[in-house]
Parts: sequence; C-alpha cells; structure tokens
Amino acid sequence: MITSTARDYIRPECVEEYYKLIFELIDRTREEKGNISYTLYADQEHPGEHVLIEEWEDQTSLDAHFKTPHFTGIVPKIQKLQSAPSVVNVYSKVK
Amino acid sequence: MITSTARDYIRPECVEEYYKLIFELIDRTREEKGNISYTLYADQEHPGEHVLIEEWEDQTSLDAHFKTPHFTGIVPKIQKLQSAPSVVNVYSKVK
Repeated sequence: MITSTARDYIRPECVEEYYKLIFELIDRTREEKGNISYTLYADQEHPGEHVLIEEWEDQTSLDAHFKTPHFTGIVPKIQKLQSAPSVVNVYSKVK
Repeated sequence: MITSTARDYIRPECVEEYYKLIFELIDRTREEKGNISYTLYADQEHPGEHVLIEEWEDQTSLDAHFKTPHFTGIVPKIQKLQSAPSVVNVYSKVK
C-alpha cells in the first residue's frame, strides 16, 4: 500500500467552487479499482489550503488514477482556482 | 476529530538516528489520551523527507501532546538532524 498527499492552495473566494469540483472528483475516485481511501481536509489556520490524504493499493493504481477522465477533466478546472500549484508527495509507511 | 500532518526534513545520513528517536515518540504518543492514530511515512522521491499523519479527538488533546515529557524531550534531539524546520498543519475533515 502507498499513501499520497496532494496539497491544494485555493484562493479563499474560490473555495465554494473548488468544493463543487473536488467533491465530484472524490466520488469518482472512490469508485476506482485500487483506491482504499481519498479524504479531503481543510487547513484550520490557512484559508483556502486543503489536503487530500489518499491510500492506494499500489503505484500502478495511483498512476492509473492520473489518467482517468474525471482526473484529467476536473483538475484543469481546479487549477484555475489556485493561488499556487498543488504539491503531491508519495509515501511508504515506516511505522 | 482533527487531523494533523507534521513534515520532517531529515538529513539523509541521519535517518537511522531519526528512526530511533521518532519510534520512541510514536510509541509513547499512541498511549496518550485523545490520540487516535499517529503514523510515520517516508517520502518515496525525496530522501530524508517524512510525514507524521496524526488523528486526535480534539484540539485539547493535541495541545496536551505538545507539552508531554516525551515530546519536549525528544523533539529537540530530532531538530539537530533536520535540514529544514518541521512544518505542522492542523486540518478539519471536509469530505
């Protein structure tokens, strides 16, 4: 299993529109083969900052996610709402 | 419930020493009242980068964690192994 975080920096005035887009992405992603969890969190101290914490069965599943129609269709719309580019990290569990 | 991430930037040659310290911190933290999970991950692409993904019952539990003897005793030792300061974020679940 691998864990990934994707941090989104959304302009605060665009958060409502961001939620419409990301909620659809979440619903569709959770239906993907190999997705274990895909959860959205809002930073309590920095308005507009969000993180998706994702668990995937393996790297192949995550690679396939990036090529899905919902990912390639929705992410460019989200990018228009950002104040800075997303930061994606991929992790392996240590303890 | 709140979720927190703490990203540690450890000099790659110090990771073995970091694990000795952080493993003790993990074991003691998991015994704390109010801690739900406290899991360490290693970044697959950036050697030395790690993240703790933490779940706490509430902010009070997290605040108490920062004052425990194991936190105040171990963290300064970890700071000597860092290439950059830790970054801590506190999140509320959106979806």
